[in-house]
Amino acid sequence: MALNPQRTIDELKALRTLTGDEHGAQRVAFTDTWVTARAFLNARLDALPVTQHMDAAGNWWATLPGRSDRTLIIGGHLDSVPNGGWLDGCLNVLAGLEVMRRVSEQYAGTPPVTLKLVDWADEEGARFGRSLYGSSAAGGNIDVAEMQKLRDRDGVSLEDALRRVGVTLTAAPQARKELENAAAYLELHIEQGPVLEGLGLPLGAVLGTVGVERHTVTFHGQAAHSGSTPMNVRRDAFRAAGQLSQEIYAIAERHGGVCTIGSCKTLPGIVTSVVETCEITLDQRHLDAGKLAAMWQDAQDAAKRAADEGGCTVTFGDLWHIEPIPFHPELINAAEASVRQVSGTAHRLPSGPLHDAAEVARSGVPTVMLFVQSLRGISHNKIEDTSEAHLALSVEALDALTDRTIAWIQAQPGA
Amino acid sequence: MALNPQRTIDELKALRTLTGDEHGAQRVAFTDTWVTARAFLNARLDALPVTQHMDAAGNWWATLPGRSDRTLIIGGHLDSVPNGGWLDGCLNVLAGLEVMRRVSEQYAGTPPVTLKLVDWADEEGARFGRSLYGSSAAGGNIDVAEMQKLRDRDGVSLEDALRRVGVTLTAAPQARKELENAAAYLELHIEQGPVLEGLGLPLGAVLGTVGVERHTVTFHGQAAHSGSTPMNVRRDAFRAAGQLSQEIYAIAERHGGVCTIGSCKTLPGIVTSVVETCEITLDQRHLDAGKLAAMWQDAQDAAKRAADEGGCTVTFGDLWHIEPIPFHPELINAAEASVRQVSGTAHRLPSGPLHDAAEVARSGVPTVMLFVQSLRGISHNKIEDTSEAHLALSVEALDALTDRTIAWIQAQPGA
Repeated sequence: MALNPQRTIDELKALRTLTGDEHGAQRVAFTDTWVTARAFLNARLDALPVTQHMDAAGNWWATLPGRSDRTLIIGGHLDSVPNGGWLDGCLNVLAGLEVMRRVSEQYAGTPPVTLKLVDWADEEGARFGRSLYGSSAAGGNIDVAEMQKLRDRDGVSLEDALRRVGVTLTAAPQARKELENAAAYLELHIEQGPVLEGLGLPLGAVLGTVGVERHTVTFHGQAAHSGSTPMNVRRDAFRAAGQLSQEIYAIAERHGGVCTIGSCKTLPGIVTSVVETCEITLDQRHLDAGKLAAMWQDAQDAAKRAADEGGCTVTFGDLWHIEPIPFHPELINAAEASVRQVSGTAHRLPSGPLHDAAEVARSGVPTVMLFVQSLRGISHNKIEDTSEAHLALSVEALDALTDRTIAWIQAQPGA
Repeated sequence: MALNPQRTIDELKALRTLTGDEHGAQRVAFTDTWVTARAFLNARLDALPVTQHMDAAGNWWATLPGRSDRTLIIGGHLDSVPNGGWLDGCLNVLAGLEVMRRVSEQYAGTPPVTLKLVDWADEEGARFGRSLYGSSAAGGNIDVAEMQKLRDRDGVSLEDALRRVGVTLTAAPQARKELENAAAYLELHIEQGPVLEGLGLPLGAVLGTVGVERHTVTFHGQAAHSGSTPMNVRRDAFRAAGQLSQEIYAIAERHGGVCTIGSCKTLPGIVTSVVETCEITLDQRHLDAGKLAAMWQDAQDAAKRAADEGGCTVTFGDLWHIEPIPFHPELINAAEASVRQVSGTAHRLPSGPLHDAAEVARSGVPTVMLFVQSLRGISHNKIEDTSEAHLALSVEALDALTDRTIAWIQAQPGA
């Protein structure tokens, strides 16, 4: 049974029909539709000589035992955001399924190393606001007490939602043992950005997930009547924020990262008053920790300058921070070689969004990802798409990378 | 009985004690506290040889009949915003009361022209969102059907609030007759801005109220993931708005008016997305109609340029518009002469805020205002203040202007 990328495309379409509606994919984690998606996967895995189990955190595992316990894991997530796309997360899982079929066939059910396919639980965090739940539990990066506080919009707790699908939240950290023999982790994902499309490339090798500095920046000026206050005595907090909105482009350019002002609140926020308080959010990302820190410092300096020049002051608040998580250099080389093998071109790029692979990588498992081109760079939306030719290439690339990684695991000391 | 400006200051303080609390003035129109403030005024007018009546719109009039029916009106408003200041509106009324005492005394109860003092109803519009209610009714600029739709935050209609104080909204346009014999209208007001304080001047003659162009400006870009979207392909609606926030300062400078961006809304407005839609409000004011129109045209041009440069589009919405309302040139001269007489200095300035005087002026009554310096330019706040020395000067200036205006009325053809 040779690799059949068209089967993956057909299965993606079947899953879309089964679990989507006119607004897009509806596989929100722990819902009935998500359970339906898992049953779709389970039925196909039943045709292979694999064992299946749900771990303590709710991740679903299929294991093809090899001659060695050392394990190559291929992962993805069937869960989607509400009104999501047909590829985000599912491509990873269903391409992995196809590769597992091919490996099982080639080695008559017993490959040289153990191969596992994992469907991570609640990568998106769409319902409870905590993304990467399942992979962080397996990676040992979970705070049960914090997670017990999470509620969805209807007041249902994550703990109750998990119980409904057979998972006890307090036991979730036991999923850590699933990675005990992990020798490598691979994940294919749509890019969810416009870089590969812009370069005219089908595939890329992912360098790692970028670090994120996420802050509030609040400018403090003086409310003043829009009619009676001359321009030259105004202390206009919105003007200061507007100045920073221009400067972040130069800062991002200088360091090679990205900076985003995503929201703006104005107080008093009425048409007849100069803005007294303007709070914006600033999200900065870079693959290099030092450059990320420099970008944040530059943004603070620019904000202070804008405040000073406009008679305002500025304060900063922490929202979130994560270090860059670089992938494994040798596996990045293997990924690039696999991309070149199937497409004749190659490109390395960082991942702006986080992925389950980041949680696996920072738990210490050698990790790499492949990106396949997204059309228009759009994801988390029903119009998310990738050409079928590129989807087929992506399955072939994951398959080639699997062979390279099996060989790499076998070549490791102690293998 | 000579003019006694200190009495006005004492009465302002007594009214503050009677109708304010630790958060400021609470004389919101049609409330019990506002009724209390009117009773305070009525009691003092009862000591003068005047008749008093409430007109069809709820304005309160005191009339000192003169040898001629031709009438000089001095006006103000006792109503305040919630948590307002002790001077805004009250100074006008109580200084007018003091001038009425002096005129009555000087002419033994019968001045050469009729003198009226009016307390306009609901200048602020704080509760129903419609300012200048009483003066616009008297000026013939009221749409009863529109006003019948107005509700406060608790769902009480303006119509019911008026009924409670004895006014039938449908009869309010009959207040128009109160201005039938009006030959001139005078109003003293705190500046509510920082101009006179900045110049070190106590008083100014007001040229008129500025025209206002009030619009929404909405930039339309493209939502995109903050991590996966390179800076050079972004269509960032907030960046475009931020560019306009800088340019309005040059536009205002070029034309000698004021431009204010008072609020900003961002969609989707989340930390992880480039802003797709950014809606701001733009308030522009100028005393010259042509320059006001040019400022609005320049703002539209600048907005289109900012949109173009950032790969966005822009649309404009109308919020409100009013023409500039210039005051009477000869009365402006009289106001300036009166200011110079009492203070030795003079300055002419436009009014950014609207006032009841604007409604009277556009009904065709020759009108002028005096401004007295506001400390820190702050109004609509419990810290609103003016030095007592300047308050005393302002009463003297209104008194001097009253004499000049009586003479001016007498000198008119047909007088």
